[in-house]
Amino acid sequence: MARTSVRRPVLKINLDATGAPRRGPDELAAEEPLEIRVRKRPLAVTMRTPGQDIDLAMGFLLTEGIIGSAGDVVTAQLCAGTDTPNTYNVVDVVLGADVPPPVTDPTRNFYTTSSCGVCGKASIDAVRTRSRFDVSTDLGTVPARTLAALPDRLRAAQRTFDRTGGLHAAGLFTADGELLVLREDVGRHNAVDKVIGWALREGRLPLTGHVLLVSGRASFELTQKAWMAGIPLLAAVSAPSTLAAELADKAGMTLVGFLRGSTMNVYASPQRVTI
Amino acid sequence: MARTSVRRPVLKINLDATGAPRRGPDELAAEEPLEIRVRKRPLAVTMRTPGQDIDLAMGFLLTEGIIGSAGDVVTAQLCAGTDTPNTYNVVDVVLGADVPPPVTDPTRNFYTTSSCGVCGKASIDAVRTRSRFDVSTDLGTVPARTLAALPDRLRAAQRTFDRTGGLHAAGLFTADGELLVLREDVGRHNAVDKVIGWALREGRLPLTGHVLLVSGRASFELTQKAWMAGIPLLAAVSAPSTLAAELADKAGMTLVGFLRGSTMNVYASPQRVTI
Repeated sequence: MARTSVRRPVLKINLDATGAPRRGPDELAAEEPLEIRVRKRPLAVTMRTPGQDIDLAMGFLLTEGIIGSAGDVVTAQLCAGTDTPNTYNVVDVVLGADVPPPVTDPTRNFYTTSSCGVCGKASIDAVRTRSRFDVSTDLGTVPARTLAALPDRLRAAQRTFDRTGGLHAAGLFTADGELLVLREDVGRHNAVDKVIGWALREGRLPLTGHVLLVSGRASFELTQKAWMAGIPLLAAVSAPSTLAAELADKAGMTLVGFLRGSTMNVYASPQRVTI
Repeated sequence: MARTSVRRPVLKINLDATGAPRRGPDELAAEEPLEIRVRKRPLAVTMRTPGQDIDLAMGFLLTEGIIGSAGDVVTAQLCAGTDTPNTYNVVDVVLGADVPPPVTDPTRNFYTTSSCGVCGKASIDAVRTRSRFDVSTDLGTVPARTLAALPDRLRAAQRTFDRTGGLHAAGLFTADGELLVLREDVGRHNAVDKVIGWALREGRLPLTGHVLLVSGRASFELTQKAWMAGIPLLAAVSAPSTLAAELADKAGMTLVGFLRGSTMNVYASPQRVTI
């Protein structure tokens, strides 16, 4: 059973109440490091909420461009780390013999990762990983009224957030507004990787005609991950960044921000949103 | 002049209003990659909001344990990237001759960075960078009533958020509640690095008796950064994660979460919060 939340003692102060501060338990969103190994070599460590770790690793490898399909992975399994008791915070991935290993430029001492935007990317020129999928030709459309209903559906399905108030969520929806999968994580990039890893394992890529909704802001990295999975419409409850809008423009992806109540802003490719 | 926000055309949809969706300009929080170079070699790239880039680089190097004081840096300057027109998205840092270069294990092909938690960290065992400062011996206290006033002060000082709705903020306060410095960024770790880099350049480290307030959640990485700067009290408007609370425990740092209105939760070292 994955530890999505942990109970801890906390001192609750209320300046408007009479009496002393109250000691009691509080549920915190679990955060633990996950090491992703490829061919027995550490490739990346991300701070994540335990659960769906295989999906997280698969989604990470896909959105980083290391694999292109589920068939590129021979095995992916949780294995023992060095901790006692064993926390199972390592996913070991074996790639097919014909899959090129992750590119690690020997003149540059670090692996390129986009898990926090592009921290670790060796060069600005290398930022824009190219997707195998062309979302600009996706002719699907979604009614604005359907989009407006999605945040409430996402929120209603967020079980851990209810307990902890501390998790980002990502949900994959059909164009009819049906929620296919929801994932919660302390890291918003992890929540998206878990969604995409699930879709990858289910053989659903590219995600033509689908909508990815994120509970927070839309950054460059989330836009890039959506593109890598062939998702034509990314919607965010909060604000997008400039680079998210520019990348969506470049990809031909629809980018919706400030999706709240009956209002929303469309920052790129508005033709997919019908009134 | 740094580009903290950029105006873009947007389609504004309001399902409750009559008439067609409205086209108009919207201000987006600027997001651009910044490459940090040490000794002419790329060390890390982070997606950040332009501005205070030298502080960001200095804070990053300190919180990663690469430098211990401002004196370890000979020069740090914005220099030309490869873009045309020049976007000044590179900070080149020259370290003193006696400063060990960043540790890059040749058997592991990536540099260890905590910019997104610990993505890029080669090993779970290496996660907990040790601080040069012991915050557990910091005898300073802060009245709960002073803490309760800080979020409004932070919010009032957030200029870019008002335009874009899309930025994280970090503010450094005295124990009396005076705001010393506020920084906004699309990346919460960058906002904190900019605050700490400023304090480093001002010769204020360790930040004994100070309070760091962040606009969002408290994660492991933000707790680690606060510790590296000798900050004894980290407060967050939203939820902390389990690992943030555990690290604060280990450091002897006070961790306050859900700091809203007249209420707050204290997750570690509550003796510094006086009623």
